[in-house]
Amino acid sequence: MASLITLTTDFGAADWFVGVMKGVIAGIAPEARVINLTHEVPPGNIRAGAFALTTSYRFFPKRTIHVAVVDPGVGSKRKPILVRTKNYVFIGPDNGLLSWALRHEKILTIRSLENPKYSLHPLSRTFHGRDLFAPVAAHVSLGLAIQKLGPELTDCFKLPWPEAQCVKDRLQGEVLYIDRFGNAITNISAEAVEELTTNQTSATHHASRITYYASNLTVWHCRKKICAVREFYQVVPHSQPVAVIGSTGFLEIAVNGGNAEKSLKLRVGDAVIVRRT
Amino acid sequence: MASLITLTTDFGAADWFVGVMKGVIAGIAPEARVINLTHEVPPGNIRAGAFALTTSYRFFPKRTIHVAVVDPGVGSKRKPILVRTKNYVFIGPDNGLLSWALRHEKILTIRSLENPKYSLHPLSRTFHGRDLFAPVAAHVSLGLAIQKLGPELTDCFKLPWPEAQCVKDRLQGEVLYIDRFGNAITNISAEAVEELTTNQTSATHHASRITYYASNLTVWHCRKKICAVREFYQVVPHSQPVAVIGSTGFLEIAVNGGNAEKSLKLRVGDAVIVRRT
Amino acid sequence: MASLITLTTDFGAADWFVGVMKGVIAGIAPEARVINLTHEVPPGNIRAGAFALTTSYRFFPKRTIHVAVVDPGVGSKRKPILVRTKNYVFIGPDNGLLSWALRHEKILTIRSLENPKYSLHPLSRTFHGRDLFAPVAAHVSLGLAIQKLGPELTDCFKLPWPEAQCVKDRLQGEVLYIDRFGNAITNISAEAVEELTTNQTSATHHASRITYYASNLTVWHCRKKICAVREFYQVVPHSQPVAVIGSTGFLEIAVNGGNAEKSLKLRVGDAVIVRRT
Repeated sequence: MASLITLTTDFGAADWFVGVMKGVIAGIAPEARVINLTHEVPPGNIRAGAFALTTSYRFFPKRTIHVAVVDPGVGSKRKPILVRTKNYVFIGPDNGLLSWALRHEKILTIRSLENPKYSLHPLSRTFHGRDLFAPVAAHVSLGLAIQKLGPELTDCFKLPWPEAQCVKDRLQGEVLYIDRFGNAITNISAEAVEELTTNQTSATHHASRITYYASNLTVWHCRKKICAVREFYQVVPHSQPVAVIGSTGFLEIAVNGGNAEKSLKLRVGDAVIVRRT
Repeated sequence: MASLITLTTDFGAADWFVGVMKGVIAGIAPEARVINLTHEVPPGNIRAGAFALTTSYRFFPKRTIHVAVVDPGVGSKRKPILVRTKNYVFIGPDNGLLSWALRHEKILTIRSLENPKYSLHPLSRTFHGRDLFAPVAAHVSLGLAIQKLGPELTDCFKLPWPEAQCVKDRLQGEVLYIDRFGNAITNISAEAVEELTTNQTSATHHASRITYYASNLTVWHCRKKICAVREFYQVVPHSQPVAVIGSTGFLEIAVNGGNAEKSLKLRVGDAVIVRRT
Repeated sequence: MASLITLTTDFGAADWFVGVMKGVIAGIAPEARVINLTHEVPPGNIRAGAFALTTSYRFFPKRTIHVAVVDPGVGSKRKPILVRTKNYVFIGPDNGLLSWALRHEKILTIRSLENPKYSLHPLSRTFHGRDLFAPVAAHVSLGLAIQKLGPELTDCFKLPWPEAQCVKDRLQGEVLYIDRFGNAITNISAEAVEELTTNQTSATHHASRITYYASNLTVWHCRKKICAVREFYQVVPHSQPVAVIGSTGFLEIAVNGGNAEKSLKLRVGDAVIVRRT
């Protein structure tokens, strides 16, 4: 069976861009199955695309081919690449879009997609999703030997990952992504929150079974305490803010039944602090 | 062949939520076919989701598995359930979302989804679409015996269906849903309109072949007559309002070539009256 | 294997319209593969739908069945048709929606979809996508003989194609479509631009290898010069306007890293001129 292909782009739904990518794939690999991860990455926003990919790719079966195209430099000298890791294949422009997902993967080979045999002709200067990435993904799904696609590269461009900092009794992070519910996902991981809790627990000689959501952690934004860290949304009354460990494994700030982005005026990049109190 | 799976959610297209649900399904049931019913239910709007499902589910082949996730109570005590009916399987939170569709179906069994064998681990507190409903649907599509999923329930939560009232020479209903064209779909059924017409016909000794759209029914909103009931949109001039029996089997208020919601200031929940004149 | 089916509509994603079309197809042709071209054609905008279709259909494998439904006249006397060309099948209302794609295709037969055997019953007056076009596409994908669908027509409705004009040293065209990036796609073809360049080249005795993007072509809008014609977006600095031959084969006006529609106040229908300077 042909491998699964996922698509992550900023192409939106208004136009035909995604549809023709699938048409090109179907022409080469009629049995290939294609799943949209998302096509609503804000135009040109490489970090948002990188976050969508890193938070999602591992929920797909092994050998899935993840194609990502957020490509403001299309047509210029940025390289189109394929990265094979132990578990997956990633295809996209070499602009950092793939790099957050690759942090967690064992890279086996990186290839520069230079072999014209596996792209459409003429190759447009504005739509490599259709003319290059889609046909390459289709060929790879059929089992094409990766080395035929182009020369090996020793490295690819890496977007710096904004690591949250732990300073004594607090975690210092930032808003990484805001989802459609207005939930603000931070870069503060479940592990970091657990660790802060554990430190607190030992410091205060409490029983070891106290968990993060029972341990008086508070979340601060713009020097204001906005909520506590709790177990799930409905622990707080309707319309009240709450921070939970979300489905991405990161702390997210939400409003129960509401929209945290709007109510709390949160933006991507805003500093967020978690404190023991 | 694996059963078809449909998805109805409020997850939107901006994020990766729907994509990872499909990834989880593909990992368990690689051959399963998944169709989006809609993912643009307004966030947390259970009634809108219930209406989308009830108006659509029967256009799918028998044995289709309908997964619906509009789940503001995710992580709290609301139960995740599976309902097998004579023709279909429904999976979702027990918050009324499935209940409008179930009004028309013969229920065979309701199960509480408690068997951890069929969910992801760890089970997040915020995303049961990915961690619970998707894997259960995938297993069921492969033929899993329903009783393995959890204990039988005697009932599930029902959202009251707002029945339109017939009072003498008029039908009293409300706007249930407004679609992307701005058409306001009411809870006044084709049958109720036909009946009102028939009553009129016999009362006035007209020939029995007069149909609803030829019989001077008028539609009222906020004490104003807004349009007549007719056969299809283009019976009235461009930009004029008209009420027709829509594709859902309910009366809907439209503007030919325009947007009734905007022109007539209609909202979900607004009272609507149909009168014989 | 069943033929591929594509869908191009103005049904949007908010409602269940597209989902039930796929449900109907799956009930008739369970193995048929369906690809969304786009469902975000602006409501009732036949020209936008026609452009999406003509720019995309040929990227799909031969024998693909292209279903397009932008159908403000649904329920009235406009005919539902199927057009078989040498390479493809097109299905939709006879309102011009298919006609721009058909300009490039050799038409073999046009059929009026009148055989009630291949539609749902009752046939609604508002949703032929579900009740007529989807089932017909499904039956055709299974190999149904086209002539069974209804009588042959000698012609179908044609939307005039707005041909760009070449007058001496300039091309006169218009904005045909604006995509989600705010790029304004014109009706000025790559061939016309090349020809203007070639004329210039011979006139000025330059070497024949000068290409359009190296030849001082400028683009004018509302009597103002807005940019030059170049090779790709990033040839100009960030936030600067540029015109390139886009992936549709037409000249498009963009802003590198920005939104030309907003920055340059471009609208569909606006006159655009390309000049040699």
